[in-house]
Amino acid sequence: MRIAVDAMGGDFAPQAMVEGVMLAKKEFPEIEFQLYGKEAEIRKYLTDETNITIIHTDEKINSEDEPVKAIRRKKQASMVLAAQAVKDGSADALFSAGNTGALLAAGLFIVGRIKGIERPGLMSTLPVIGTEKGFDMLDLGANAENKPEHLLQYAILGSYYAKNVRKIAQPKVGLLNNGTEESKGNELSKKAFELLQANEEIHFIGNVEARELLEGRADVVVTDGFTGNAVLKSIEGTALGMMKLLKQAILSSGIKGKVGALLLKDGLSDLKEQMDYAKHGGAVLFGLKAPVIKTHGAAKADAVAATIRQIHTMLASDVVNQLVAHFEGER
Amino acid sequence: MRIAVDAMGGDFAPQAMVEGVMLAKKEFPEIEFQLYGKEAEIRKYLTDETNITIIHTDEKINSEDEPVKAIRRKKQASMVLAAQAVKDGSADALFSAGNTGALLAAGLFIVGRIKGIERPGLMSTLPVIGTEKGFDMLDLGANAENKPEHLLQYAILGSYYAKNVRKIAQPKVGLLNNGTEESKGNELSKKAFELLQANEEIHFIGNVEARELLEGRADVVVTDGFTGNAVLKSIEGTALGMMKLLKQAILSSGIKGKVGALLLKDGLSDLKEQMDYAKHGGAVLFGLKAPVIKTHGAAKADAVAATIRQIHTMLASDVVNQLVAHFEGER
Repeated sequence: MRIAVDAMGGDFAPQAMVEGVMLAKKEFPEIEFQLYGKEAEIRKYLTDETNITIIHTDEKINSEDEPVKAIRRKKQASMVLAAQAVKDGSADALFSAGNTGALLAAGLFIVGRIKGIERPGLMSTLPVIGTEKGFDMLDLGANAENKPEHLLQYAILGSYYAKNVRKIAQPKVGLLNNGTEESKGNELSKKAFELLQANEEIHFIGNVEARELLEGRADVVVTDGFTGNAVLKSIEGTALGMMKLLKQAILSSGIKGKVGALLLKDGLSDLKEQMDYAKHGGAVLFGLKAPVIKTHGAAKADAVAATIRQIHTMLASDVVNQLVAHFEGER
Repeated sequence: MRIAVDAMGGDFAPQAMVEGVMLAKKEFPEIEFQLYGKEAEIRKYLTDETNITIIHTDEKINSEDEPVKAIRRKKQASMVLAAQAVKDGSADALFSAGNTGALLAAGLFIVGRIKGIERPGLMSTLPVIGTEKGFDMLDLGANAENKPEHLLQYAILGSYYAKNVRKIAQPKVGLLNNGTEESKGNELSKKAFELLQANEEIHFIGNVEARELLEGRADVVVTDGFTGNAVLKSIEGTALGMMKLLKQAILSSGIKGKVGALLLKDGLSDLKEQMDYAKHGGAVLFGLKAPVIKTHGAAKADAVAATIRQIHTMLASDVVNQLVAHFEGER
């Protein structure tokens, strides 16, 4: 099990990435890590060199780089070299906290799509409120436009993921729509509904509304990338905004509020913990020939380690090769 | 100023509607209210009969009725009679807390569109976190599908509303998109971007992402009805979910948590108050020949009164007739 790590991506690179790898090594000593980036900087945070290979490169992709151009021109960038290793078969998965667009481009153009998957989608496991569970949603924005067939492919991808990685025996699939009735929706969602309902491999439960997402009615929710992106960002923006309001409320209540907050400390940190979906790992660019995983740019060592756990489960369950067999077998 | 009130719509009808009217009468004694519904039930909550006319009818539209059918078949329903009064010119605005789809249908088919407006949109003033301000967003779901031209019309409608009703001198208009760069988006949002940028009447500030909505970067945000509906419901679902989590956190912290919550009481009720956008009034079905306003089904008397305040401002500022002049003048 060999993971190609873009050590230079993310706000706290390479420290957060290398420290996260060190944490993960304790749990999974069998994983071989390839760390792509500036060797001297990476070495600063290296506490255990077993199963670690450093592939030195000075070039890296920045967060403001135009994704496709960056992938094409910065041939020696840490992310590009890591993607190339997966393509060449010298690594089994690609992991980065860097420029999301560039990672999508590296995934599509270097790692490559599974034959039969037209538009790989970005998938995350989002929190189900009040539980330790989550639900998988895709496409969260890899595509600006999708066809009904893509949504069916997302339903299959998501179901395989929920089964293999989250160990849900028969994942319930929902279609994000603007009402729960069968007749609801725009042209895309109406056609997707028909395709999903006609498919016998998945356990389709019908339309779900955005209001019910965090209640966990479905284990897998499919939508087009434009809507998925808007929904994900609405959830994030609202959760962040409410945490901010809560802090303001505490600060403006003076000493009384501060004592109150202190007494509620465990509860409030549970609240934050509940909404922090990094515990489920990073976002998967799903539909590629190998796991390509993005953790958020601000990830610290523990979120990096959680994402490595996710990659480990994806590799151990061989979910991607199951999907390859499924989609290539179909044609 | 005459408001036709569907007294029978909403979870707490007619009590909440009538009590809300009674509250509003104290602030606006000059408004003439026409209350459509069961006279005997309405009378139970009537404390002041000046400027009140009751138009008795036994029929009403239920929340589970199929909207267009209900409007066509239940000719004597309170909502239909109230809409008819606006069409006939015997009332100036239509107000209901009932079946949203039916109210949209009554608005479109009975009250009628402003000439030149192809697809009226549903608009609400949503909260800007940490302030008393709000931002207007449309279409929140009157349409499942929109064209770029509709989004331009929404920008003009929203700007007139922000100026006239919310008294913002030069409202900033943003286009909801999956990135802030000009090149971002699906086909619809890219074309809408061009139309918005070329229009000199509005103050277009470019793309806004769903994550920034509650930060108030724009005073008016336009999007298609499918996306707008998903975003609105995501915000509502997340806010409700977090309030639920907060309650759980308090309950599970035992006596310590309960004391903490008591000390934080004012702060916590501020939090709830902040996210409750009913204080800005109801949702406007905008682009019709008269104000048609929906307050949420669970509205109590104070939310009903706040919505009447909003209708009063719409009528006093004559915003709809300004829009009629604008759009009919164009053709």
